[in-house]
Amino acid sequence: MATLVQLEDVRRAREEIAGRVRFTPLLPCEELSAETRSQIAFKCENLQITGSYKVRAAFTVLLRLSAQEKARGAALSSSGNFAGAFAFAGRELGVRTTLVMMRKTSPFKAEKTRKYGGEVVFCDNRYEARFETLDRLRRERSLTVVNHLENHDVIAGHGTIGLEIAEQFQDVDVVVVPVSTGGLIAGVATAIKGLSPRVRVIGVQPVGSNAASLSFRAGEVVRIPEAVTICDALTATSPGPLPWEHMRHYVDDMVTVTDEEVTQAVAYLAENAKLVVEPGGAVGVAALIRGHLGVTGRKVAVILSGGNVAPAPFARWILEREASRATKDGD
Amino acid sequence: MATLVQLEDVRRAREEIAGRVRFTPLLPCEELSAETRSQIAFKCENLQITGSYKVRAAFTVLLRLSAQEKARGAALSSSGNFAGAFAFAGRELGVRTTLVMMRKTSPFKAEKTRKYGGEVVFCDNRYEARFETLDRLRRERSLTVVNHLENHDVIAGHGTIGLEIAEQFQDVDVVVVPVSTGGLIAGVATAIKGLSPRVRVIGVQPVGSNAASLSFRAGEVVRIPEAVTICDALTATSPGPLPWEHMRHYVDDMVTVTDEEVTQAVAYLAENAKLVVEPGGAVGVAALIRGHLGVTGRKVAVILSGGNVAPAPFARWILEREASRATKDGD
Repeated sequence: MATLVQLEDVRRAREEIAGRVRFTPLLPCEELSAETRSQIAFKCENLQITGSYKVRAAFTVLLRLSAQEKARGAALSSSGNFAGAFAFAGRELGVRTTLVMMRKTSPFKAEKTRKYGGEVVFCDNRYEARFETLDRLRRERSLTVVNHLENHDVIAGHGTIGLEIAEQFQDVDVVVVPVSTGGLIAGVATAIKGLSPRVRVIGVQPVGSNAASLSFRAGEVVRIPEAVTICDALTATSPGPLPWEHMRHYVDDMVTVTDEEVTQAVAYLAENAKLVVEPGGAVGVAALIRGHLGVTGRKVAVILSGGNVAPAPFARWILEREASRATKDGD
Repeated sequence: MATLVQLEDVRRAREEIAGRVRFTPLLPCEELSAETRSQIAFKCENLQITGSYKVRAAFTVLLRLSAQEKARGAALSSSGNFAGAFAFAGRELGVRTTLVMMRKTSPFKAEKTRKYGGEVVFCDNRYEARFETLDRLRRERSLTVVNHLENHDVIAGHGTIGLEIAEQFQDVDVVVVPVSTGGLIAGVATAIKGLSPRVRVIGVQPVGSNAASLSFRAGEVVRIPEAVTICDALTATSPGPLPWEHMRHYVDDMVTVTDEEVTQAVAYLAENAKLVVEPGGAVGVAALIRGHLGVTGRKVAVILSGGNVAPAPFARWILEREASRATKDGD
């Protein structure tokens, strides 16, 4: 049985990364609050440095490496956002970084990683191929490999978001979190439940990438054959073992949303909150708009986990929402 | 000679509107900082309640009305953002509001004003028609008319942005401000120069709506026959007399940008800062991208004054920037 990350460890991570990452704004949303008859506020990790929350864990992990590990350079596999964040943090701290990505990774995210000075190594489009490639890099180049699925520092780093929400949103009742491997919700729930066990923590996944959600219902880790979703940041085919141990203890509920609900939420956020949010970052808002979270009268913090969406599809989703609205008006 | 608004009056406005408007985030922009070799941070009034800074002046003005004036209801003319803000503040304070808009006003902004409970009265597409219509409303309906061009409270309310920037951005060197009638820059400059006269205040206008810029060069109020620009929030054909008195005293420079530079800046902000900003709110970024502000090595606060852009053109500008980038890459 794995040792869980403790609130104290999240607090320590926060001190370590202070000044290197952004204390992101929590923005109330009048429109969505009115529509859901609750008090909704967005925790804007899309406005975080590198455009996603991953930079919190990236700094936590890299700062905690030994001098020798740092000197060898560090490697990580990622669907995109962690890669960019890791490259950025590596450049800031003078640690050479290598990022393993599946060939199908959004070119927008691969390019961003290179721009920050990270070396990108592509692998096959299988989730497991990422770890096989990391193993090879460890053997051939002696790189320090970070397995983000088993790393306490990753969860501690992500948990700093929970500490900030608790400070920014007095008497918050519910925290809504996008879920892939579960690292984010594991950290956030550790902080939130550690501070106030009565606060509900709800995870959201795309229906086509619902491994953590199925696991939650089954009470044990469930693996799906393939993740099929527009949310390129949420493609884990099973929750990570260590995040799962935290989810099992702390998460109150899991819900799923369709890709169409997600792209409509992306367009909704642009129009009403003036924020650019990527699909994986907008799943919480998609769930709220659909109205299935049962939050009437509650204070709800929704984590917008990232904003790294390619411009062309982003623009297309906005136009699609406009077109569907025009059709409705014409009825 | 008009009496100028004093720093003390801006401070008083800030106390009055505290808790009713948002202390908006100041977000550093790593990308634009690298490109301009300076330290750029955005003062995000696009994330302000109602999507623009105008709500600061709206509350300041309405809170300072007498009980009798409030009971009669208040009227204002606006190109759109002030209307929405005034309607919103009126609803919050229980004051009935009437908003005079030119027929050519963005339907998106008129709709938003109605949504907040304001009554919209359209007038001809002449800047002066707005004041003729207000006069009529005063006579016929005894409404309390607010002339935002001559109102000290408007300037004091807008000035609260300057106080916040000074607190959020230590040792700021330059503040860049969108300009139409000059009310925003008048308030911001009053606060900034009052706190630290060495800080430069630079105004930006669209080339097709450059009355304040021409006035600045001439040293006296210049009127242009017509404003032709995509920036629907910046359409004044002359600076307001009271704002002009402040500009004359405090503004260090004025520059202009083309509509094309503005729409590219809107797309740039979506991609790099994850923010939705309307054309009039993006003129400062347009000027910085072009590189004509001479800010190398400086700490620069850029006011993003609003985010109320209709979804369809916003999406189109993003696609246009993508297309122009693809063309360049293909060369």
